[in-house]
Amino acid sequence: MKVKSVFLRPAWATLALSLARLSDAAVNHLGVRDDLHFPIEARATNNDGSLPIYKNPNAPIEDRVNDLLPRMTVQEKVAQLIQGDIDGWMNMTDPLDNTLTYNQTGLEQMIESKSGAIWAGYLAPWDKIVYAITIGQKYMMENTTLGIPAIIQSEGLHGFTDNGTTWPSPIGLAASFNTPLLQEAASTIATEAEGLGYSQLFAPVLDLSRELRWGRVEENYGEDPFLTSQMGHAYVTGLQTGRRRNVSDTAIARMAATCKHFTAFGSPQGGLNIAQVSGGERELRTYYLKPFNYACVDALSIMTAYSSYDGIPNVANTHILTDILRDEWGYQYFVTSDAGSVDLLITLHGICPTRECAAKVALEHGLSGEMGGGTYTYLTLPDQIESGTVNISYVDETVRTILRTKFALGLFENPYPYPDYASTLRTQATRDLLHQMERETIILLENNNNILPLSTDIGSVALIGPQSDRVSFGDYVFYNASLNGISPLQGFTEFLANTSVKINFAEGCKLWSYDESEFPAAIAAAKESDVAIVMVGTWTLDQTLLWTPGTNATTGEHVDLSDLSLVGAQFPLVQAIQATGTPTIVVFVSGKPVTNPWIQENVDAVVQQFYPGELGGLAIAEIIFGAVNPSGKLPVSFPRSVGTTPVFYNYLKGARPIDPGMIYPNDTMLFGHQYVLDTPVPTWSFGRGLSYTTFNYTDLQLSSSTIGTSEDFNVTVTVHNTGPMDGKEVVQVYMTDYYSSVVTPNMELIGFTKVDIPTGQSTTVTIPVTSSQLAVWSVRSQWVVEPGEFNIFVGTSEEVYLNTTLTVQ
Amino acid sequence: MKVKSVFLRPAWATLALSLARLSDAAVNHLGVRDDLHFPIEARATNNDGSLPIYKNPNAPIEDRVNDLLPRMTVQEKVAQLIQGDIDGWMNMTDPLDNTLTYNQTGLEQMIESKSGAIWAGYLAPWDKIVYAITIGQKYMMENTTLGIPAIIQSEGLHGFTDNGTTWPSPIGLAASFNTPLLQEAASTIATEAEGLGYSQLFAPVLDLSRELRWGRVEENYGEDPFLTSQMGHAYVTGLQTGRRRNVSDTAIARMAATCKHFTAFGSPQGGLNIAQVSGGERELRTYYLKPFNYACVDALSIMTAYSSYDGIPNVANTHILTDILRDEWGYQYFVTSDAGSVDLLITLHGICPTRECAAKVALEHGLSGEMGGGTYTYLTLPDQIESGTVNISYVDETVRTILRTKFALGLFENPYPYPDYASTLRTQATRDLLHQMERETIILLENNNNILPLSTDIGSVALIGPQSDRVSFGDYVFYNASLNGISPLQGFTEFLANTSVKINFAEGCKLWSYDESEFPAAIAAAKESDVAIVMVGTWTLDQTLLWTPGTNATTGEHVDLSDLSLVGAQFPLVQAIQATGTPTIVVFVSGKPVTNPWIQENVDAVVQQFYPGELGGLAIAEIIFGAVNPSGKLPVSFPRSVGTTPVFYNYLKGARPIDPGMIYPNDTMLFGHQYVLDTPVPTWSFGRGLSYTTFNYTDLQLSSSTIGTSEDFNVTVTVHNTGPMDGKEVVQVYMTDYYSSVVTPNMELIGFTKVDIPTGQSTTVTIPVTSSQLAVWSVRSQWVVEPGEFNIFVGTSEEVYLNTTLTVQ
Repeated sequence: MKVKSVFLRPAWATLALSLARLSDAAVNHLGVRDDLHFPIEARATNNDGSLPIYKNPNAPIEDRVNDLLPRMTVQEKVAQLIQGDIDGWMNMTDPLDNTLTYNQTGLEQMIESKSGAIWAGYLAPWDKIVYAITIGQKYMMENTTLGIPAIIQSEGLHGFTDNGTTWPSPIGLAASFNTPLLQEAASTIATEAEGLGYSQLFAPVLDLSRELRWGRVEENYGEDPFLTSQMGHAYVTGLQTGRRRNVSDTAIARMAATCKHFTAFGSPQGGLNIAQVSGGERELRTYYLKPFNYACVDALSIMTAYSSYDGIPNVANTHILTDILRDEWGYQYFVTSDAGSVDLLITLHGICPTRECAAKVALEHGLSGEMGGGTYTYLTLPDQIESGTVNISYVDETVRTILRTKFALGLFENPYPYPDYASTLRTQATRDLLHQMERETIILLENNNNILPLSTDIGSVALIGPQSDRVSFGDYVFYNASLNGISPLQGFTEFLANTSVKINFAEGCKLWSYDESEFPAAIAAAKESDVAIVMVGTWTLDQTLLWTPGTNATTGEHVDLSDLSLVGAQFPLVQAIQATGTPTIVVFVSGKPVTNPWIQENVDAVVQQFYPGELGGLAIAEIIFGAVNPSGKLPVSFPRSVGTTPVFYNYLKGARPIDPGMIYPNDTMLFGHQYVLDTPVPTWSFGRGLSYTTFNYTDLQLSSSTIGTSEDFNVTVTVHNTGPMDGKEVVQVYMTDYYSSVVTPNMELIGFTKVDIPTGQSTTVTIPVTSSQLAVWSVRSQWVVEPGEFNIFVGTSEEVYLNTTLTVQ
Repeated sequence: MKVKSVFLRPAWATLALSLARLSDAAVNHLGVRDDLHFPIEARATNNDGSLPIYKNPNAPIEDRVNDLLPRMTVQEKVAQLIQGDIDGWMNMTDPLDNTLTYNQTGLEQMIESKSGAIWAGYLAPWDKIVYAITIGQKYMMENTTLGIPAIIQSEGLHGFTDNGTTWPSPIGLAASFNTPLLQEAASTIATEAEGLGYSQLFAPVLDLSRELRWGRVEENYGEDPFLTSQMGHAYVTGLQTGRRRNVSDTAIARMAATCKHFTAFGSPQGGLNIAQVSGGERELRTYYLKPFNYACVDALSIMTAYSSYDGIPNVANTHILTDILRDEWGYQYFVTSDAGSVDLLITLHGICPTRECAAKVALEHGLSGEMGGGTYTYLTLPDQIESGTVNISYVDETVRTILRTKFALGLFENPYPYPDYASTLRTQATRDLLHQMERETIILLENNNNILPLSTDIGSVALIGPQSDRVSFGDYVFYNASLNGISPLQGFTEFLANTSVKINFAEGCKLWSYDESEFPAAIAAAKESDVAIVMVGTWTLDQTLLWTPGTNATTGEHVDLSDLSLVGAQFPLVQAIQATGTPTIVVFVSGKPVTNPWIQENVDAVVQQFYPGELGGLAIAEIIFGAVNPSGKLPVSFPRSVGTTPVFYNYLKGARPIDPGMIYPNDTMLFGHQYVLDTPVPTWSFGRGLSYTTFNYTDLQLSSSTIGTSEDFNVTVTVHNTGPMDGKEVVQVYMTDYYSSVVTPNMELIGFTKVDIPTGQSTTVTIPVTSSQLAVWSVRSQWVVEPGEFNIFVGTSEEVYLNTTLTVQ
């Protein structure tokens, strides 16, 4: 979802961290204010005056849904299907404004027509948000006939967006390959939002980064369905686990995670945002659906994708949203369309000429609620039901899913912000956890002659490049979130404060310019230093600036590249620094793979830092100087050029013929065939990530080398830290299905775990694999585990350490 | 099919045109030679001694098939399923050798085990081919039990390959948009092959050029299913129409066309040859299958694709080969696998661990014969039938299709070469037709200030660039075919022979090098000339050299690009010539779109000549100097860079958001979003092609502006030649289906015709459209014409001249 642009006040920049907080007393007062008086009809009580089942906190959720639904008018039902907006009763245009007054008429109108969920994803003082949410929920609970609270929504891809803690972008989180850590991280994100009264965050994104031109690659957990499944599940679990305060035991989550974008959204044609996706049922099942199936059946919400898949818009795809999601998977909760996407049936996909048609098609094919951002086509539903155009059963079925999510959240018991919300936001514990995550997301890609880690005994280090003094957060943060972050220059300065290492900083060039006028200063800085660190990459902007005309960015939502190489003077800057003879370390700070084979071949070390969180600038210093041993692994493969894409490692057998050619530095050419003057082999492939220590693998064993078609098995291997430093290793297990009735991937990740091994010690890890992971989507449209042999190996997608054979009988 | 490498004799180059021909007398003698004596069993006669039905030339084909099949042994049946090779009895390694002796043992063994079709696609003296075919057919007819002749096969994508006339590559043929002319051309190609005894040519290719990196783009009729359908149908009709001499009236064709590659082969992942293709059923139906359905139901053969589609190899795709092709379309004839592709089930796709499995899977799922080039897995079938692993019914069903094709060709009556074969090869009439085709394939893309046509009154023209003195044929020609061609330098010289225009020739650079040492000579040539023509592009090689290690090429089978821009010093050469100030015309000679927006923006005219035929060098001179008015249109869109692909014009609605950025010549950047620094809009789009005259369109009318869902309609429009020169125009009719139940293409070509209009005159054309062209592949998996409005317009894919609305009720 694109959030609305907010008013940009120049003074805002300096005030971002000084938001006034509403006192607990004020909140408590709000909680009992009695200045709202509305008639309550008899529908909310039983004939005998007893409490309806739906109001019984201890009744089973399904009973409560079944009790409430028949009490609702058509108007009330339709209102549940439509996302409202807190700006209906609060002026949210100025992110600094903290006026605690609301518009009563706006509130009433909003709740009457659009109140299933309320969008409250604004940059605003926390106490204003709390006030606004409290007002709204109180009105709904106490002054509407049935007293149905709203789900309160915001963003949370990598941190709660209203001045919560900003974490690394999901692609970086995935690079940690650390699911327990991600679950903890997600838990803190939910905690920051929960206290303010939010009950739904639009995360995680489970799209696969198979089309690297697409701007939203940074929002995904990489290219692999298994990694994405695991990380997604950790995120959903972290967000949801627990209960809101003062709710009944029947509540199953404190926050609705929102798995998106359902489905196959990450492979738009041409890399163009929201463009159609080509693919068949087998590709859908084998790749795109797996993360959703694994991570989201218990998520309290799922968001549909803007795009079409094989010619059917996802927002109205019966096969995907009903046949598979509802019937096959048994998904019971709230499915929401993305912002404005129902209208796209009219304006983009050419399915409907009218809003009436769009509403009918989306509802009947998708059983989903309608998000704002469009024309609220669902407002046409009451008339369509009245006229018989739309059958009320579709409305009922969809309202059930929304009510189920609300009961599962315990909102009927307590939909309110917590008085002590401030104590759960931006805590030191969260910051400590963030610090650990920042360290684990950084990936060492090349380290010639072990130039890294640098010693703090060196005299000086040059810090060069347009990413050096920049807090390069990924997209889906709010305006000026970066003010909470530490830039690499700040981080290195802090880290080296008690050493004698001198930092020679020179920006060298801007990210967005070919201007080389600052090169001489950068070259001088490199020449006078023992080593040069050049930080380059892509960049994006916060959700306000990203959608503001006249700004620039190279990644993020609706920012799609036709070329994955460094923009402007960045590559010439790297070359100029390398040419000084000073040992040169390139750090890519980016939201997606940057293509540049020259850098891989010519500099002394390469480090990848996907868009970091608030402490990324410190973590990169810690990694470079060896205070922390790098342990991140690539969640996505790096192509040599855009013309050699796709390069995901798990391509179908036969899809990657290799007979490379090349252009030598002296411009002579070696002519090959795949490709004529390049190779489809990536520069760096999925799972790669070096360490300052060395790991040796022994004793690969399967719990059973022969299993039945429905038997699970374990993979056990011993990992030895044979190098000079304690370190973390991601043990990765892959399989290749030698022969099957359909074409299977060349290899697939089927398990991983991250272990911390002190130098000289070893650890034996056991990784479980389920029989379902061996299944293929057969020509009979079924998952089938076929007898045969499988190659099971540990390593990365580019290197096999040990392998063995599994036989399925 | 990749033909086998032949021995490369250095002297061959000078002898290509001097192949000795077998005299008619010799052929006649061969026809009655009686030195082969083999026993003939009683199966070939009825019990009463009468002629079996299958030997009755006048019996219906189905009766003959039904009569013959039960007479066959399993061994004989399986032999029909396997492609033999004429090299089994003739030494074909030396293309110059003309020794008319054969190997009797080899002949017997070949016919016994592999004789459904016989590959005879060799470069060899015609009389040797005739001898070899005659020997083989005579043995089969007279000395085997049942007397079943073989289909004799060669290549014929753009000309009969054994020293027949070479035509422009299919992408160029498509640029003519002239279906009657293509049908005539195909007819001559069949005629050249027919006399020598060939009965099957592996053409046309109906793959769609939607993935431009793929090496085989030149073999297709472009990106559009309708254009491909029409051109393919013309080619099939041209190849097949007529009957072999002395055959019965039941024969329906003289030559088996072979539609390939079935299906979706043209969109391999990454552009990598034979890689998997992603796509669903709707994309399959809406794009890939249409040309085959339109052009090939009456073709006597279809060849399967190497690739998989949504995870199922095409060679064993029951859904495509049986459900759709056989059952839905009722296709009755011979389906052949491509060379070696059954073995790919073992070695590439991971479907089968054994040859037995591969044979069973391919046969049972595909009902196809097995081409050579692999391990002849079908040789395992007799044992598999014996053991019950394979049911004989699959063999029977497939043999039926092959026999049907043979009866349909009249081969049982006359499988022999014609005595006067020489009179039908390389005739002047064919050359005249070729000359017309060459002219119609050339496309004028840019013509600033009407710099073209050049006047023959100018003093001098510089002819520059590595394509200037090269005969750049496309792939699928045999070794040294280019010796039959006229280079542009030869063509300009010939054309300007009786003028005073001086040609200043300078190659400038090689196609395959960055060497700029010859630039000064080229610059000098430009400076001393009134105008400069720079000919650059891609190149490929003949079927021998293309597969020879150490050669180079940038297009052709198994030659896939990661970058579509000019290779080596070619672009710097263009820039250097343009910088001289001499008016500069760039001619792209290529097998696919070359990306270079600079050329579009900076030179005075741009002409596209896809790989020409033998007279391409003359035709380009005729076009440049205005002896011929250009009339070619782009059958494929030209992207601005590989990173902006795909750029086919008929993308699904919503798949092409456009918010372009750019890098200005002074290196300042305008940041956009789709794409950040480029645009998905192609440099030149499908259907574009300028003329030296101007055409004006009026009076667009539909036969009925409202039709029923099963009614056809006509589009009528009047075209006026309002310019100074006679000219041909391709009238193109497109439609957009405003709203439908599934996402439809942004626009689709639904009709075209090419008309010749003298200056000052006008022509009214009527183009028929069938209701089926309005159909969408519904979510219920049916073709449905849905009521609604359609925009019908004439123009090109980038320009609307006139439009109107069609209402379907």
